[in-house]
Amino acid sequence: MKGKFITFEGIDGSGKSTQLRMLADALRERGVDILITREPGGTPLGRRLREAFLETEETVAPMAELLSFAADRAQHVEFLIKPSIADGRVVISDRYADATFAYQGAGRGFTEEQVNSVITLATGGLKPDLTLFFDITVDEAIRRMSVRPEAHAKRNRMDEETAEFYGRVRVSYLGIAGREPERFKIIEAGRSVEAIHADVLEMVTELIDV
Amino acid sequence: MKGKFITFEGIDGSGKSTQLRMLADALRERGVDILITREPGGTPLGRRLREAFLETEETVAPMAELLSFAADRAQHVEFLIKPSIADGRVVISDRYADATFAYQGAGRGFTEEQVNSVITLATGGLKPDLTLFFDITVDEAIRRMSVRPEAHAKRNRMDEETAEFYGRVRVSYLGIAGREPERFKIIEAGRSVEAIHADVLEMVTELIDV
Repeated sequence: MKGKFITFEGIDGSGKSTQLRMLADALRERGVDILITREPGGTPLGRRLREAFLETEETVAPMAELLSFAADRAQHVEFLIKPSIADGRVVISDRYADATFAYQGAGRGFTEEQVNSVITLATGGLKPDLTLFFDITVDEAIRRMSVRPEAHAKRNRMDEETAEFYGRVRVSYLGIAGREPERFKIIEAGRSVEAIHADVLEMVTELIDV
Repeated sequence: MKGKFITFEGIDGSGKSTQLRMLADALRERGVDILITREPGGTPLGRRLREAFLETEETVAPMAELLSFAADRAQHVEFLIKPSIADGRVVISDRYADATFAYQGAGRGFTEEQVNSVITLATGGLKPDLTLFFDITVDEAIRRMSVRPEAHAKRNRMDEETAEFYGRVRVSYLGIAGREPERFKIIEAGRSVEAIHADVLEMVTELIDV
């Protein structure tokens, strides 16, 4: 089988991680050779970088954050994603370059040119064959996050101010769908887990032809 | 006093760290408010990034290395160098952007455009007022490294193959002097420590006018 590269995108609370697990199970059942990975933190270096710049109380300069995400991605592309695709595997990553475009571009006030330039350096131009964007409204995301028992600490981070931030991030994601409709598909993620899974499986099996 | 930004550059074994200590002592004696720092690792985030990508046995993709250096630099510029200059201090950094240009540009096969684009992102265009390049031949650098009692492990890294690498790095540094002769000064570093220190002190006191 020819290797493929699929990415999952969405704001926190969109349900993409649940859908990723369900898709992985369904593909494994069909005997597809898959690799599940994520950004940041898909490689040992990436996990150390993630710890250095995300799991900290220290204030991180927005540009340092953008470049750290990019360093993680460069290692991920070079030593995990590209070799796995070349080996004929189906690589599915929980977030990739579109997340940088949406979060750092919309949220941190960088120009599109700055963000795109960093993304191109990190990826060497590698684009996913298919990206699924799990779309929910920001209100719904906040509602879901607030009922997660483990996420009470996170609740504070999604207050009024960050609702506006997540709104900008969502609009930025939706803009990608307008520019690259063939690659970037919007999944209505406010529906039942099963209905969403059925759509995901259909789109993915069409791509990888199993 | 108006803040200034001075950087020290040179290949391993050039004696720049010794000269930096001597300059710092001389300036402190004259009552100059100085900040001595370095790249990578000038901030807490920088030290964690440095550990993540330099102090490892893992193979690091050249682009991941370039972007990690840049992330370290973005944090360093934003939270240490710029505020210190604004406070009127004389900031002296052991390595800065020219090192990336010379080492990653000459050594790793990136295009000048790629390296310059990453440097501009990380520095926001901040250039040193004065850069001192401690120039020795690669043969001399190898001779000095080999007699350092603590550096036996390093000796292997400066074998025939890396001599050629350090040669390219040196040529790349010397090229900067050709393009920016006002800022980038070549110090003949094969002479006695005292003779070099006298030159360094003269150039720096001329800049900061003490």
